Amino acid sequence: MHIIVQKFGGTSVADKERMLQVLGKVKNGLDGGAKMLVVLSARAGETNRLLALAAEWSDEPDPAECDALVATGEQVSVALFTMLLKDAGIKARSCNGQQLGIVTDATFSKARIRNINTDTIQCLLEEFDVLVVAGFQGVTDDGRVTTLGRGGSDTSAVALAAAAKADLCEIYTDVEGVFTTDPNICGKARKLDRVSYDEMLEMASMGAKVLEIRSVEFAKKFKVPVMVRSTFSDAPGTLVTQEEESMEHIMVSGIAYDKDQARITLRSVPDLPGVAASIFGPLAENKLSVDMIIQNPSREGVTDMNFTVSRKDLRRALSIMEETKQKVGGLEVLYDDNVAKVSAIGVGMRNHAGVAAKTFASLQRENINIIMISTSEIKISCIIDEKYTELAVRTLHDAFGLEHSSYLEQA
Amino acid sequence: MHIIVQKFGGTSVADKERMLQVLGKVKNGLDGGAKMLVVLSARAGETNRLLALAAEWSDEPDPAECDALVATGEQVSVALFTMLLKDAGIKARSCNGQQLGIVTDATFSKARIRNINTDTIQCLLEEFDVLVVAGFQGVTDDGRVTTLGRGGSDTSAVALAAAAKADLCEIYTDVEGVFTTDPNICGKARKLDRVSYDEMLEMASMGAKVLEIRSVEFAKKFKVPVMVRSTFSDAPGTLVTQEEESMEHIMVSGIAYDKDQARITLRSVPDLPGVAASIFGPLAENKLSVDMIIQNPSREGVTDMNFTVSRKDLRRALSIMEETKQKVGGLEVLYDDNVAKVSAIGVGMRNHAGVAAKTFASLQRENINIIMISTSEIKISCIIDEKYTELAVRTLHDAFGLEHSSYLEQA
Repeated sequence: MHIIVQKFGGTSVADKERMLQVLGKVKNGLDGGAKMLVVLSARAGETNRLLALAAEWSDEPDPAECDALVATGEQVSVALFTMLLKDAGIKARSCNGQQLGIVTDATFSKARIRNINTDTIQCLLEEFDVLVVAGFQGVTDDGRVTTLGRGGSDTSAVALAAAAKADLCEIYTDVEGVFTTDPNICGKARKLDRVSYDEMLEMASMGAKVLEIRSVEFAKKFKVPVMVRSTFSDAPGTLVTQEEESMEHIMVSGIAYDKDQARITLRSVPDLPGVAASIFGPLAENKLSVDMIIQNPSREGVTDMNFTVSRKDLRRALSIMEETKQKVGGLEVLYDDNVAKVSAIGVGMRNHAGVAAKTFASLQRENINIIMISTSEIKISCIIDEKYTELAVRTLHDAFGLEHSSYLEQA
Repeated sequence: MHIIVQKFGGTSVADKERMLQVLGKVKNGLDGGAKMLVVLSARAGETNRLLALAAEWSDEPDPAECDALVATGEQVSVALFTMLLKDAGIKARSCNGQQLGIVTDATFSKARIRNINTDTIQCLLEEFDVLVVAGFQGVTDDGRVTTLGRGGSDTSAVALAAAAKADLCEIYTDVEGVFTTDPNICGKARKLDRVSYDEMLEMASMGAKVLEIRSVEFAKKFKVPVMVRSTFSDAPGTLVTQEEESMEHIMVSGIAYDKDQARITLRSVPDLPGVAASIFGPLAENKLSVDMIIQNPSREGVTDMNFTVSRKDLRRALSIMEETKQKVGGLEVLYDDNVAKVSAIGVGMRNHAGVAAKTFASLQRENINIIMISTSEIKISCIIDEKYTELAVRTLHDAFGLEHSSYLEQA
């Protein structure tokens, strides 16, 4: 069975007119002889409307009930879209997460998919040509509705593609693919034809926002080829796929940035075993993700520690640090929420020396002060003053010659 | 386990403020030591909003998808209300029809409940003190979402009460109970303390609108005591229950009316075997309910036939009759949609002679012409000109002395 998964976001299903455009994409797949799994998000604005209702009803809405509430947004999308398919004479039905057996853990609002009932999908695909699936949602083992967190429909789509052994997972969005950087701040940004899972992971986590990061992890784990493309054009998109040799010929594939950063500085941290755990343990227990962590070498038995969190988590992180101060004496807590992160990403870094040096030198030439640095095998990230973000992105894009078609693209 | 079912309609859950009133009712039940099953409708206006969306998307929305769409209305209600319960420290969770195993047939938009998973309810009631259940919905054997039709939340409530072997099913509404007739057109209308299932069935089917008719059938079948009462007061309501001896002491318990009536007259119907079937068969196949049917004795091999349908079904019924004309030669089709039905109802009729005579005489005294008559063991119905409806109701209410407390009420 030739199976294609297509996923459409909230703007693509905002109204009937746009849904009819989506219908065209689905028909393309059917004309090619494929059975289709079409994953939809809630219509634009719907999830926020439902969350606002929850906020009106409760200062801290019960997470399980909030998920049950919000999941209705996608259920409305799939029912409406399936009406259009049926009117077009296509054998189709809608499915919510419960009906398709998309089983998740019980971390409400940020649930992770554990299992998808492959038999159910196979059975339904024998009866129907198109299954229209509510994205972003699943059920726990004991049948409670969960949601996968913002952007979770991407994850739904990739997970379904893996479960159904689909030939391709197409993620339709309002951009034409993955760019070397944000075209809104760098006119020379160029669309990539291909990008590796690892690069995409770094770009997504850096705030490139084209694909939800967990969906890329899923795609990598199950080797699902993902095509990112535009709902509103027929241009070929960017294929996110396994790393190939040709990709290693270029140093850097893209420049990402993330303004959703806040830095917390802990001064006079006693350099004793267990102190780091007593700082980061409570953050983890409260499900606060810490991004960069930098600890300076200790002097006279005390050290400084810097770490970054998402800005929306800053207030909670600071209040947790206040509690930590009670346990760890002498601690001083400072913070800065006017910082941003700029990153150069590329699997080619593994084989090219000097990427770090070139990054630092380029930023220095523009008098941009680097506050924190963190590196991985395929990424170099710098925390800088937020106001320099755009300049830093353009500078690095130029420095690594990203406006020119790379070896990869020529291949 | 002491179990109470409470059902609240759309106006009772329209906004947070009203839901807080509902919360008070639920607490009353909990304070009495009961486990609670709370069945909610969609918030006022929500079902119509969703149906309007469906109409915007398709001229004839796929019925299964329409049900999947509309069922979200109740899911929103139960999630929001459960947030309030949780905030009040009550052990509660929401359940949709799928989660509770409310299995129906596959007649989308008018599904009938076939089975409810009693074990699931028992298990959940051991863990939670309140289950907040989305009314009006179920699932087919193969897991597709269905709705039970308008007013279906009443049926959900009674069916759940039967399945859970509840001690009482309270139907909260915006009136204080069941009245001898519509207080809006008869100032002397009086609230009944008790009414039998059979009387309630006739009143509901006559358009008394307090309880959905299928819910009463269910209640009768499973002997579920149903209390109809107001969300917005603490007044005792009307208990709908099994017939008792005291009820037979009164002739008539109530006067109902129904303006949603249209009469179709067939002239020159050949008086042959199979003709009635060829007329009413196609109507039944098209799921059109026919109410009264009257056939005059045949003269010269032809007869006249009169029947009534709901006004909204008139156009479809007439077009089916046009088809019937092709098959049954010589037929003439007339109609009148300015008629109404007025009925006197009471289990006491079984033991009291003269109810029919008194009804006809009373109407005649006011010069109200009776167009059609139909009687059952506990009901006499007359089709009259619509414009006389209010006068007829008041006349019969007076004639049977319904403003005075009956034997039943004194007991």
